[in-house]
Amino acid sequence: MCRVALDVMGGDHAPHATLEGAGIALAAHDDLHLLLVGDETVLKSLMASYGIKGELAARAEIVHASSVVTMEDKATCILKDKKDSSIRVAAQLVRDGRADGIVSMGHTGAAMVASKMVLGTLPGVDRPCLASAMPNMKGRPTILLDVGANVDSKPEHIAQFALMGALYAEEVLGIKRPKVGILSVGEEDGKGTDTTKNAAQMLKQLDVNFGGNAEGRDIWNGNFDVIACDGFVGNVVLKSSEALAEGILFGLRDAIMQTWISKMGGLLAKPAMRKFMKKLDYVEYGGAPLLGVKGVSIIGHGRSNGRAVASAIRAALRGCEHHVVVRIQDSLAVLLSQTTASGTGERE
Amino acid sequence: MCRVALDVMGGDHAPHATLEGAGIALAAHDDLHLLLVGDETVLKSLMASYGIKGELAARAEIVHASSVVTMEDKATCILKDKKDSSIRVAAQLVRDGRADGIVSMGHTGAAMVASKMVLGTLPGVDRPCLASAMPNMKGRPTILLDVGANVDSKPEHIAQFALMGALYAEEVLGIKRPKVGILSVGEEDGKGTDTTKNAAQMLKQLDVNFGGNAEGRDIWNGNFDVIACDGFVGNVVLKSSEALAEGILFGLRDAIMQTWISKMGGLLAKPAMRKFMKKLDYVEYGGAPLLGVKGVSIIGHGRSNGRAVASAIRAALRGCEHHVVVRIQDSLAVLLSQTTASGTGERE
Repeated sequence: MCRVALDVMGGDHAPHATLEGAGIALAAHDDLHLLLVGDETVLKSLMASYGIKGELAARAEIVHASSVVTMEDKATCILKDKKDSSIRVAAQLVRDGRADGIVSMGHTGAAMVASKMVLGTLPGVDRPCLASAMPNMKGRPTILLDVGANVDSKPEHIAQFALMGALYAEEVLGIKRPKVGILSVGEEDGKGTDTTKNAAQMLKQLDVNFGGNAEGRDIWNGNFDVIACDGFVGNVVLKSSEALAEGILFGLRDAIMQTWISKMGGLLAKPAMRKFMKKLDYVEYGGAPLLGVKGVSIIGHGRSNGRAVASAIRAALRGCEHHVVVRIQDSLAVLLSQTTASGTGERE
Repeated sequence: MCRVALDVMGGDHAPHATLEGAGIALAAHDDLHLLLVGDETVLKSLMASYGIKGELAARAEIVHASSVVTMEDKATCILKDKKDSSIRVAAQLVRDGRADGIVSMGHTGAAMVASKMVLGTLPGVDRPCLASAMPNMKGRPTILLDVGANVDSKPEHIAQFALMGALYAEEVLGIKRPKVGILSVGEEDGKGTDTTKNAAQMLKQLDVNFGGNAEGRDIWNGNFDVIACDGFVGNVVLKSSEALAEGILFGLRDAIMQTWISKMGGLLAKPAMRKFMKKLDYVEYGGAPLLGVKGVSIIGHGRSNGRAVASAIRAALRGCEHHVVVRIQDSLAVLLSQTTASGTGERE
């Protein structure tokens, strides 16, 4: 039985989308025990209408939290003003051993702060990192990390990101011996910054399937399973890609709606287009794991619907089942001992 | 009369696409004088078949170059082994005052080296930068620079990129008082690296319409006209975006071709979809200018067809007409005097 704490109050469509997702996930996974964190009165009154009753309700436990972090709040509010917020209470459940992982669709920054400060980071992890599954053109996910805007990463950070990403890809996404790359401006070893080159040197000495430098296009072509980078470039690429994909799809839709003939064509082609667009859909990939903290932490998109919430819960469940946290901790211990032994090349 | 030297031998479809583009450009612009640089025999035999005859031929002059840089060559080959290559000869025409600008669809690295080393950089420019016009969702271009993979930019480099991009946007693309941003991981002033924050400080003191930090999504939503960044992140974003857009469009096409019904729908919707896709097409935007060198230098996509070549020539022509190089030189002199006076904040 895996115990996941869900921040029911977080997200644009909370608590409805989160409860809907909770219902779907409970029905799909017998071994899931959910801790629903949020306003007790609200949750009690809504649970049943999202199918959480009978056997499912027996595996769903309400944990009261009296406030919620809003988009106007600062990420650090959970440390002082909003200690009773649903995301912080959820994190505390993991810290106190009552849950194995947390899932939140709320304020990304607050969820990251809660995970880092309340759960704490694993030994040897300087920076937890946010990993995003980018749907590549081979119909599989490519893990890009860090996308969490940690800037000025050092080589050992990027090597850590790569290692954590590889473990996540293998254990949670089921990709056998994932091919790992370091994001750079050219395939050749000599291309990139001192940071990326030193990170590559470190990875060559580790037991990962390291494929060298990845370029921007490799995020989408499926040539790599895991691509590690500094959080600045990862964040920019993630936000840019979301906007570009959305712009193309909306733009095409608008263009098709301009004339009756094309509208009719669009109608006929719709099921096929839908099927393809589903491949690109973040809903399928279940949120972004924050790797390197003492517990499974999945941060979902604010816009998540019920299906996306259920995917995020599934990701947390798999992370718990596969003991991803312990495995990352063990692998990092090896990395740490190797890099301490050999000395690290830093940028400055 | 503006004199543009065209590297006729450079590009995947050279010399056919380049000559076709030359013909289109000569017909469209009375004030264009083209220097066609390449194998004299080849050019003489092909020119007429691309419409370069009569009055147009009078404004087209062949300049012989006995070799061409291939994709297998190193960028620096033009300095030693391939001094007689078409791209280097074209650059020499500008250096020698016989042309005002160069256009090449060939080896990007070689074109950059030729521009930097043969033309030379403007006083005060540490790093020439490659600017790419990204087609935004408002149907206009957003200039992103540097995309030329110059890594580890200092604040003054990024400020220079921003300034040069703004001048280019105003003079060549006709955008009045373009809104300039610095690419970062959040809108707020405090977000980003020391480098981006210091670059922002520098821009605030200059006579540009500075809009603060831009995020990844702002490359596409049209909120900024010019976005400056380090060449590492610019290059990654450019390559990633090209691959993503292509992947979506090919993926949609493949999905539509799966069934007869959707195929029929695709056929009906095709003209509308085409019209939209044209907006995204690099062909329309005429290549990437390399800014900061002593002369107009436009570097086009290797895959350019005749229309794209003509667009690139048009961009060079506008650059010449609007004295972009002199204007950049003057503006940089102001920046240089200001930053020398105030001291620059560097990352290290």
